[in-house]
Amino acid sequence: MRKESRWIRWIKWIVIVTVLFVLGFCIGWFAKPSNTQNHTDSSHYLKDFLEEMKADKIREHLRKFTQLPHLAGTEQNLKYAEQIMKEWQMFGIDSVEMVPYDVLLSYPNESQPNYISIVDHLGNEVFNTSLAEPVPQGYEDISNIVPPYSAFSAKGQPEGDLVYVNYGRTEDFSQLQREMGINVTGKIVIVRYGKIFRGNKVKNAVLAGAKGIIMFSDPADYWADGIQPYPDGWNLPGRGVQRGNVLNLNGAGDPLTPGYPAKEYTYRVSPEDGVGLPNIPVHPIGFHDAFRLLNNMGGEIPPNNWKGALNVSYRIGPGFTDEFKSQKVRMNIHTNNQVTRIYNVIGKIRGAQEPDRYVILGGHRDAWVFGGIDPMSGAAVVHETVRSAGRLLSTGWRPRRTIIFASWDAEEFGLLGSTEWAEDNARLLQERAVAYINADSAIEGMYTLRVDCTPSLHTLVYDITKQIPSPEEGEEGVSLYKSWHKRDNWTNDRDAPRISKLGSGSDFEAYFIRLGIASGRARYTKNTKTERYSSYPVYHSVYETFEIVEKFYDPSFKRLQAVAQVRGALIFLLADSQLLPLDVNEYADSLRKYAQSIAQLAQKNLVEMETYKVSFDSLFSAVENFTVAARDFHERLQTLNKADPLQLRIMNDQLMYLERAFIDPLGLPGRPFYRHVIFAPSSHNKYAGESFPGIYDALFDIQNSADPAKAWEEVKCQISIAAFTVHAAAMTLTPPA
Amino acid sequence: MRKESRWIRWIKWIVIVTVLFVLGFCIGWFAKPSNTQNHTDSSHYLKDFLEEMKADKIREHLRKFTQLPHLAGTEQNLKYAEQIMKEWQMFGIDSVEMVPYDVLLSYPNESQPNYISIVDHLGNEVFNTSLAEPVPQGYEDISNIVPPYSAFSAKGQPEGDLVYVNYGRTEDFSQLQREMGINVTGKIVIVRYGKIFRGNKVKNAVLAGAKGIIMFSDPADYWADGIQPYPDGWNLPGRGVQRGNVLNLNGAGDPLTPGYPAKEYTYRVSPEDGVGLPNIPVHPIGFHDAFRLLNNMGGEIPPNNWKGALNVSYRIGPGFTDEFKSQKVRMNIHTNNQVTRIYNVIGKIRGAQEPDRYVILGGHRDAWVFGGIDPMSGAAVVHETVRSAGRLLSTGWRPRRTIIFASWDAEEFGLLGSTEWAEDNARLLQERAVAYINADSAIEGMYTLRVDCTPSLHTLVYDITKQIPSPEEGEEGVSLYKSWHKRDNWTNDRDAPRISKLGSGSDFEAYFIRLGIASGRARYTKNTKTERYSSYPVYHSVYETFEIVEKFYDPSFKRLQAVAQVRGALIFLLADSQLLPLDVNEYADSLRKYAQSIAQLAQKNLVEMETYKVSFDSLFSAVENFTVAARDFHERLQTLNKADPLQLRIMNDQLMYLERAFIDPLGLPGRPFYRHVIFAPSSHNKYAGESFPGIYDALFDIQNSADPAKAWEEVKCQISIAAFTVHAAAMTLTPPA
Repeated sequence: MRKESRWIRWIKWIVIVTVLFVLGFCIGWFAKPSNTQNHTDSSHYLKDFLEEMKADKIREHLRKFTQLPHLAGTEQNLKYAEQIMKEWQMFGIDSVEMVPYDVLLSYPNESQPNYISIVDHLGNEVFNTSLAEPVPQGYEDISNIVPPYSAFSAKGQPEGDLVYVNYGRTEDFSQLQREMGINVTGKIVIVRYGKIFRGNKVKNAVLAGAKGIIMFSDPADYWADGIQPYPDGWNLPGRGVQRGNVLNLNGAGDPLTPGYPAKEYTYRVSPEDGVGLPNIPVHPIGFHDAFRLLNNMGGEIPPNNWKGALNVSYRIGPGFTDEFKSQKVRMNIHTNNQVTRIYNVIGKIRGAQEPDRYVILGGHRDAWVFGGIDPMSGAAVVHETVRSAGRLLSTGWRPRRTIIFASWDAEEFGLLGSTEWAEDNARLLQERAVAYINADSAIEGMYTLRVDCTPSLHTLVYDITKQIPSPEEGEEGVSLYKSWHKRDNWTNDRDAPRISKLGSGSDFEAYFIRLGIASGRARYTKNTKTERYSSYPVYHSVYETFEIVEKFYDPSFKRLQAVAQVRGALIFLLADSQLLPLDVNEYADSLRKYAQSIAQLAQKNLVEMETYKVSFDSLFSAVENFTVAARDFHERLQTLNKADPLQLRIMNDQLMYLERAFIDPLGLPGRPFYRHVIFAPSSHNKYAGESFPGIYDALFDIQNSADPAKAWEEVKCQISIAAFTVHAAAMTLTPPA
Repeated sequence: MRKESRWIRWIKWIVIVTVLFVLGFCIGWFAKPSNTQNHTDSSHYLKDFLEEMKADKIREHLRKFTQLPHLAGTEQNLKYAEQIMKEWQMFGIDSVEMVPYDVLLSYPNESQPNYISIVDHLGNEVFNTSLAEPVPQGYEDISNIVPPYSAFSAKGQPEGDLVYVNYGRTEDFSQLQREMGINVTGKIVIVRYGKIFRGNKVKNAVLAGAKGIIMFSDPADYWADGIQPYPDGWNLPGRGVQRGNVLNLNGAGDPLTPGYPAKEYTYRVSPEDGVGLPNIPVHPIGFHDAFRLLNNMGGEIPPNNWKGALNVSYRIGPGFTDEFKSQKVRMNIHTNNQVTRIYNVIGKIRGAQEPDRYVILGGHRDAWVFGGIDPMSGAAVVHETVRSAGRLLSTGWRPRRTIIFASWDAEEFGLLGSTEWAEDNARLLQERAVAYINADSAIEGMYTLRVDCTPSLHTLVYDITKQIPSPEEGEEGVSLYKSWHKRDNWTNDRDAPRISKLGSGSDFEAYFIRLGIASGRARYTKNTKTERYSSYPVYHSVYETFEIVEKFYDPSFKRLQAVAQVRGALIFLLADSQLLPLDVNEYADSLRKYAQSIAQLAQKNLVEMETYKVSFDSLFSAVENFTVAARDFHERLQTLNKADPLQLRIMNDQLMYLERAFIDPLGLPGRPFYRHVIFAPSSHNKYAGESFPGIYDALFDIQNSADPAKAWEEVKCQISIAAFTVHAAAMTLTPPA
């Protein structure tokens, strides 16, 4: 007994000792503060975040913010800004502020309307174009609908013969002058909208010597087969007109303060030195009026690809047929430029671990009229994203990095609000911005998803869309990825949904092309294989109403919901993932494709390439170097100790700064604010993104150059800059020391 | 007893339980891996590092690397590079590599010497300037001593009348043309060296229309009172001549590859488009030859401040006195520009915690001849620093951040080696460089320390010099700080040794003025109050030998040792301190002084300032804003939890990027590679640093402008840019979200 009892006592002792030690150890272990970030599994937060975004709420937001016209610089647009600020505050994000700038805007003169006349030999106006679009039903009592105009047109009343120049592209003017032998000096040109940015058409007209330019929407470009004009369908009525600015800013922002934010104390250049302002009158018309101007035109019948869908012969002029020879065309343009206050709304959620890393979701608020599609379908989506983020915050979530929401002003006047803010915050953004997601119109068709983004975001976009349901009827249980993939595969060389390059024409421009921040945009689009019209028919007309979305584009609002979820998931994962979800190997793959494609373009001039000793070898070798560096970097990522906050930060910094490495501080030739060597619009069309734009433009110029030796020198120079830039970017992916 | 025994047993129990618990707790606490950096107290390492740098070793290094001429692009300079690489490897730093570039250099034609003649009316050369300097004793058998020349001079043999234009400054040419009514078009100008960078003199001569320019060293500017000429003293002999490049690069680096590194595949502009190349012949002479050219000059006697110390009347011409009227001056210049390979040597010590943060110590190796002072007194100091760092590494030390040592090539040809490397590594440097410490000549006088640096380094320089002993005889036990303070106090407004602004003319230029990396330089200097000569008398002559340092400038080599310790301590503390030793409040104080000073300069034109509504209010308000932001930032630093590696990194990033915030990507007007809005040389003198150089230049131009309204607009524009930049920099110091 005694012995047993002693044994038992010993066992008791040992148990007690062990328990106490373990207890002490555990308390010691957990009492010690940890510096490693708790990698809270954020996936259930992501699910909550996406599920909180509701179609009905998006409908409500869209309804609310499309009641009244809210052109940039008007009182109504300030009111909407105040309302957005108030609601974002209510949604519970950390801070919301209004950030004003004073920029050059342009408005029609209220007492002298703009229009175009046909005048007889006595100067009498025998025909005048309409002063306004017929207002859609239900909006008859609304005031402040700005009549169709070309913002920043020069004032003037030029009179002369018309020349029809197709889409007004560089190649159209070149064909007109070289093949058709027509000089437009002193003439008024008329071109159809579409294919390229309207500002490029105006620039081409100015360069060709025209004294005025008229742009019209041809049914061939703004009319979908089998669809009724609004309000019975979503086609453009004959008297509907596309508004728009006609600047050639090339990323400068406010024309009077290029490179600097337009603050109260900022020095402004004189209006005649303003960036990108055309020096001739410009005016847009609908196809109803265009018919009248084109109908009696004389001159040659143009090639078939110059013919639109109006019942006219599209003769190029100059001037009218013999019968009407004495008639001229007169433009009456009284539009004024004036420095006007605009307002961005900026909301923030402070990052928990890395407050100095920024993920931005920005889109504009200003609209030509109601902005039913452009931009409020996008703004409603942002609004719902902010609401959902606020809800998530209230449940205890906080992102690792800072999220910034922006409601930009004056996008329609040249991306002014977003560019001024980028200029104002350039230092912060350069050092700290992880990504910029753009939120312009969320829908432009009813077919499938459309994504344009930097290559390093490809993988994230695919991952995300696999987690979001398709909004299409009959596709319950099908992922957005699958729905999208089925409708728009990436041509032969890749079995995945197509993702395109970013061009310009929306607010990501300053962030991506000037500052080199990884960027992307997502929206719902048409079937580009079968629907050949430009953008969408009622683009920038008074017919962009809430109703056109509700009746035709997205009656269930599920497509907008899907777009909200894509944009939302992008910012969520960019802000909250421990390791940044950017894929360097995708960048390498894309660079290889781009290099092959630009070299192939050059091969068209094989003989000259030999004559002038032009070679793409240095570029291919740089891309190869980049590919190896990317692969090695990706491998090192696999062995990264994520528990070490400094090691994690160092590799995240390499990921973040990769896009920045493609920025050339000297800018592209003649375009100091377009600085991305891999992606920018060509000089000939702001809308489309070109890869290696410096080389692309140099090759483009070969065709029109009077001095081919010099033109080829420029190609060689641009190849060298591209090769260096790719090498330099590769260096940023190698171990830092 | 029994009760007591139970009590005792209970106490035993409690003690055992407690001990076990504490033991467990402690083991648990310490068993858990910590992510906070061990802030090993690095002060004893610093002490070891500084004490390891030996005067005798510096003497050895200097002796070794001044045996032979080692002009950039020559075989001997490559040999020294290879030797340095080998020795740095032996010293035990982590890696050393040679980095070549192919840049435009300029050499005299070996078969056609450069010289200047006086020719008679038949064209016979009645006087020729010397073809070489007399070689100092002991160096008679040395070949490859390049004769004095102006690198990058145009070729040519212009002949004409001389005009004397004092120092060739903007104000000298202006005085000549306006007050003296002399036009130098088609003339050859002769100017004395000194006051401003020689390249600015050449530019002024070109702008004035001269067809050639001769530069000479006047004893007034290159002769110290009471000192013998070399070898009996350190004064410039009459046949000694200052070599030097005459480019106007404004920071472009290699003239043929502005903005990009001069690699094998890099596109080169054609030579006639090269940056900064003068289009007239240029040649330097000593005062012995200058006397012959000046002696017979006719024309007016100039104002006293145009007179040097030669026994001539300094008449301004044009041409000679009546007696010699038929004589002309002819320049015979056959110098060739040629693309040549140069070599930087780059050594690295990998940072332990933050390998992606770089602290750079760089100085050039190439010399005009032996480089006894320029640059080898500096290169010997770098060599000793690398040796000491290698020793410290072998004792187990490793810095927190990466240290980069650089031996630059071709500094004398326009800072080419350092600028090409900066261009090559721009992305990495922009994101990662903490500081750049320059190591050109370590001595130019025998009086005291001289430091030029960015304001945020002021405090560190003071702290360091308090820990380093004075090298002066009789000052045993006195700190360098005290010795320096006694000799050169910061004028009335501050009781501390004077620290100056960085100008240009050495390799920090691309790092500081183009990239915005906090920079500084330190050397031993003369007494500027009493010694009025420019730089030091034998500057860029063949008399810059090892012996001139050993006999006159620093016989004990303690001054060079002190400079080594200052430069070494700077890189040590910048690389190894947990919190970056950069002082934002000092930047605020300096900005206030600079704003006051530039506003005061403008006040000279009070009436015009009112007429054109010029105000500095926006700048003062920005400086005030910056001051508040700096103070708040400094306060937040005091409560920083340094154990949190992310919080520490975030604030260190703010400190590091502050200098970067002053960079304007658009550059200063007309100088795209000078981008620092606070510090740059004025357009009129590359050597001296101006604060707010954009405003300074605009104010300078007021005097010479034909259109004052326009000139004042430029002043207003520059004030606005400066105000914006200071505001933007202030923003970077506020909490990041």
